[in-house]
Amino acid sequence: MDFAKPIRLRGQILGGGKLPLVCAPLVAADADGLRAELAAVRAKAPDLIEWRVDFFAAITDTPAVLDALAELRAGAQGIPILFTRRSTREGGHATGLTEPQVLCLYEAVCDTGNVDFVDWELSGEPDLFRHVLAAARRSGAQLIASFHDFHKTPPKDDLVAKFVAMAEVGADIAKVAVMPQDMADVLVLFAATQEAHRRIALPIVSMAMGGHGSLSRMVGWAFGSSITFAVGSQASAPGQIPIEDLRQLLDAIRRGMGVQ
Amino acid sequence: MDFAKPIRLRGQILGGGKLPLVCAPLVAADADGLRAELAAVRAKAPDLIEWRVDFFAAITDTPAVLDALAELRAGAQGIPILFTRRSTREGGHATGLTEPQVLCLYEAVCDTGNVDFVDWELSGEPDLFRHVLAAARRSGAQLIASFHDFHKTPPKDDLVAKFVAMAEVGADIAKVAVMPQDMADVLVLFAATQEAHRRIALPIVSMAMGGHGSLSRMVGWAFGSSITFAVGSQASAPGQIPIEDLRQLLDAIRRGMGVQ
Repeated sequence: MDFAKPIRLRGQILGGGKLPLVCAPLVAADADGLRAELAAVRAKAPDLIEWRVDFFAAITDTPAVLDALAELRAGAQGIPILFTRRSTREGGHATGLTEPQVLCLYEAVCDTGNVDFVDWELSGEPDLFRHVLAAARRSGAQLIASFHDFHKTPPKDDLVAKFVAMAEVGADIAKVAVMPQDMADVLVLFAATQEAHRRIALPIVSMAMGGHGSLSRMVGWAFGSSITFAVGSQASAPGQIPIEDLRQLLDAIRRGMGVQ
Repeated sequence: MDFAKPIRLRGQILGGGKLPLVCAPLVAADADGLRAELAAVRAKAPDLIEWRVDFFAAITDTPAVLDALAELRAGAQGIPILFTRRSTREGGHATGLTEPQVLCLYEAVCDTGNVDFVDWELSGEPDLFRHVLAAARRSGAQLIASFHDFHKTPPKDDLVAKFVAMAEVGADIAKVAVMPQDMADVLVLFAATQEAHRRIALPIVSMAMGGHGSLSRMVGWAFGSSITFAVGSQASAPGQIPIEDLRQLLDAIRRGMGVQ
């Protein structure tokens, strides 16, 4: 890909490297729901599957989480898995877990070897971040450091600073999601993405949420974003569009831009 | 349209007002070629047809131009016509006409009533601009003031100043086209478009040319551009994509953004 950095997994470039990886979230509340959701999502052939475990009702029951994950791993038929607990502060569901308990869950999850990527919020305590990073490293998983603002779009320099901070703490991938109030905010997100893409060596991921922001899910890769989230079965954030529509769009835009 | 201003012709909003107008250029060298090109382009149902008269070999023969135009008008079957002589300075073909002779041609063309829009470069002499504007006014045609840079993308503030200057000299529509060196330049064009869209009352038109810039032909409307140029039969500038591909893309992007 000429516009955004490729994402590698065990030395292989994922998804061909021409276009952003399309990631489908799973948001079911229990194992049965997850099974049905996975079947629906898998049929759309995403490049990546994200399990948003904060939607999982039994999240406090670690063995139940590990069982569901093992089933997910088997059912994903080789599609890489991203494991994400989104905090309520950044738009996730309430889980009842303390942050140290979430860390313990991540450690247990990493130790199974059943995840390829884990998402951890930059805003968490630095000590916990270091432990998650170590657990990911031990298991061969990559750490996506993330930042979400569901209310507004911070100034460009603030967003670039987030990406840079993620690189400095040792993340493998740096992700920023914001809520635009208008198209000017979408341009702020593009400009921050473009600048961070040039300034740091890591692959970066960015999106503006909501209706205005959905444009970023279609064209953000041209400004440096390596992953775009799309609906396989159910959306996990506002502005996501169906995978099949997104794939067609990405391909048409790519052809229009003359990207081979 | 929520994102760019609608373009009106004799009180009616052209093209439905949801998406940018798709304009197809005609670049044939003679009347026969023009006839064939019009037939091919008309089948693609553009919202607007631009006759790039600087490609017309008999441009110095005013009656030949007026005859070809009359035939174009009849053959366009109601699709509005934009009449454009692009100067060599701004990317057009050499014609052998002096600027006053071009003005006389525009006056003769306007007087026939067979054009709905005329394009005149802002960089021309102010006196000539005023005469073209008067001729357009007399005939009920609208004047698109234009600026093209085929080599680079000037800074954002310079581009905004061009749009503002076009408004100040009395244009009906303000158009800026630039050549980006990279995606950062495409963002400059979007940012200038967005700011000019807010600052001046006129509909504005903008595009970045070439491969990188072709993204602007697909999504520039979301930042305020009211017309996008696409290939009906032959391109008139680098980066234009086929009308049918562009229409599909615009519609898919519109749906993705939730624009009703």
